[in-house]
Amino acid sequence: MADFERMWADLAPIGRSSASGGYFRQPWLAAELELRAWFRSAAADRGLEVEEDPLGNLVAWWGPEGLPGRLLTGSHLDSVLDGGAYDGPLGVVSSFAALDLLVARGVTPARRLGVAAFVEEEGSRFGRACLGSRLAVGATSWAEARELTDRDGVRLGDVVEGGTSTLLDGVEAYVELHVEQGRGLVDRDAPVGVHSGIWPHGRYRYDIAGRADHAGTTRMEDRADPMLTYAMTALAANKQARLSGQRATFGRIDVRPNGTNAVPSHVTAWLDARAESDEALASLVAAIEKQASDRAGRDGTTVEVTPESVSGEVSFDTALRERVGAGLPVLPTQAGHDAGILQAAGIPSAMLFVRNPSGVSHSPAETAAMDDCLAGVEALADALAGLVA
Amino acid sequence: MADFERMWADLAPIGRSSASGGYFRQPWLAAELELRAWFRSAAADRGLEVEEDPLGNLVAWWGPEGLPGRLLTGSHLDSVLDGGAYDGPLGVVSSFAALDLLVARGVTPARRLGVAAFVEEEGSRFGRACLGSRLAVGATSWAEARELTDRDGVRLGDVVEGGTSTLLDGVEAYVELHVEQGRGLVDRDAPVGVHSGIWPHGRYRYDIAGRADHAGTTRMEDRADPMLTYAMTALAANKQARLSGQRATFGRIDVRPNGTNAVPSHVTAWLDARAESDEALASLVAAIEKQASDRAGRDGTTVEVTPESVSGEVSFDTALRERVGAGLPVLPTQAGHDAGILQAAGIPSAMLFVRNPSGVSHSPAETAAMDDCLAGVEALADALAGLVA
Repeated sequence: MADFERMWADLAPIGRSSASGGYFRQPWLAAELELRAWFRSAAADRGLEVEEDPLGNLVAWWGPEGLPGRLLTGSHLDSVLDGGAYDGPLGVVSSFAALDLLVARGVTPARRLGVAAFVEEEGSRFGRACLGSRLAVGATSWAEARELTDRDGVRLGDVVEGGTSTLLDGVEAYVELHVEQGRGLVDRDAPVGVHSGIWPHGRYRYDIAGRADHAGTTRMEDRADPMLTYAMTALAANKQARLSGQRATFGRIDVRPNGTNAVPSHVTAWLDARAESDEALASLVAAIEKQASDRAGRDGTTVEVTPESVSGEVSFDTALRERVGAGLPVLPTQAGHDAGILQAAGIPSAMLFVRNPSGVSHSPAETAAMDDCLAGVEALADALAGLVA
Repeated sequence: MADFERMWADLAPIGRSSASGGYFRQPWLAAELELRAWFRSAAADRGLEVEEDPLGNLVAWWGPEGLPGRLLTGSHLDSVLDGGAYDGPLGVVSSFAALDLLVARGVTPARRLGVAAFVEEEGSRFGRACLGSRLAVGATSWAEARELTDRDGVRLGDVVEGGTSTLLDGVEAYVELHVEQGRGLVDRDAPVGVHSGIWPHGRYRYDIAGRADHAGTTRMEDRADPMLTYAMTALAANKQARLSGQRATFGRIDVRPNGTNAVPSHVTAWLDARAESDEALASLVAAIEKQASDRAGRDGTTVEVTPESVSGEVSFDTALRERVGAGLPVLPTQAGHDAGILQAAGIPSAMLFVRNPSGVSHSPAETAAMDDCLAGVEALADALAGLVA
């Protein structure tokens, strides 16, 4: 599997921060554009035809155009800010390597097989996770998406052409390989597993408004400080998630004017919440919002909560999972994935995942052993061999 | 006093955000450079000679160079981010207008009188309040200051020439007029007052380190989330200040990587703390730091606290205050001022302040009635007439 190791080494420096060792691969910025060029070159090396839809999703097709039926494998190339090397690219590189194995085994495809790279999976630039796949299946409309802006105020509509994607037309199944984002396989002492489904999850923007004041001359009791409302909300989110066994995180905040000697006028913060069922998610989000509102009443501030993206519970196709992951450990995931978007849109999907000894994700510490990665490629090739035949 | 009104109208648009109505006048950026040009033009209109030290502090001198002794009046031109129109510029404009009154009254100066504009009083760009006056009196060394960087990483040493200032050599007294930053004069129904002294105050940087993780897949109990430590510290600061009748504020925060679906790896936040005595300040700051450390122990994070600037208690010169503010209400201020830096360095200083009906400061809502501003100019002119004679 020299090809896997070479591809992996080629990607290692792209978008890597020498300060943190983490990756900054935001869509349509320099590092991610370099990854797209790499994708096209990997496809060209294998004689695959690359199709790009008006949203920037890429597929490299194997097998002649006239074949009846289409299958997809792949993942994404973008990263969170300061993320790890594996989340996304492991699936794309493994897909090319699995295809190489099929060729080496002399498999003749009876269906077209595409290696996909969905764009903006992490939502790290335009704030909408799985944006490329959501647009491709029509779960998000282009009319809505084109108005999304990044942190510098750049509109998505000014970055990509946009329009209707036909990339998924006639696709019968999607198989995504991903690095594990917890310690499930470590605990089970297994290199590769298969996901049963995705927890419901959402992003909720909290806009907390108070009144700017001098940090020295304004008496504590005369203030309307949105930072206090925020702080209590962040603690409440943590507590509610702990109590209910779910997940809630405030990882992003924007403060105005953000000056040391000024009581802020506004705090905007983003809640990431996930739960084992749609009801549990709704209950978690409501409990946090209630504590925020109660505290705002005491602080003299106001809170407005806007859901930015909410994904319901997804169960992956059972028949496909049994074909793809026969004999492998079965676990749910708390992370959103393009495979979840496709499954929710009616395309049977499955996810293989590879052991991550750190158990850590969205961090430079995320990792996987080379032997486990190669076991993942073998498992993916076995699954695809059965599906393309 | 048409001159006052004209000068005030000239300054109104400079650095004003049409979105918030607030002012962005950071030193050595476009708006503040325009204010400097205005200062030179106001001096030229009056035939005053402008002296600029290597740090960027400006003084416009009235009276021939040979006069024995020097007096200063003035304030600053820079603002906090999204600040008000009055904090700083009111003192500079009032100084020019008071000088016009002295000329109109036919006063012949027996000492040189300078109108001063100290640079970076708010510390909004390089993080050090009263930087210009601290450098001018030698309380901060140029060797230390030149390494300060702004939010874009620009070094102060690359912005100004730097070196030793002789601007304050032989200065016998400094009188600064300022808009009030609380409601003391509103409560006393008086347009103008005089300050007795300045509360001790400081800025303390909190560096809180945790571990980046995926916001969905990492169990709450497996995290080391610095946002939680920060949130508890911000609430603790508020509570400690309330309990002790002092002031403590977290108004500025910098989160890494600041992504919605990532548990942060680092939170840096700045505590602004003020108290009625040096002992009360030390006790307040220690109590907050202790609560932060206790919480960090529970969160699995670490906290490092670095004092960035701490100013001890300042009592303004009593004799000067009695000459400048005879018959006016006397109140302390919780805000740092260049007058406090000069007084601490042994230059007798006094501060007049003008009623602010909003009681609000470091905010676009800060205001003063024109009649009160003109009463301030009269009071300043009366004080200066006695001092220059």
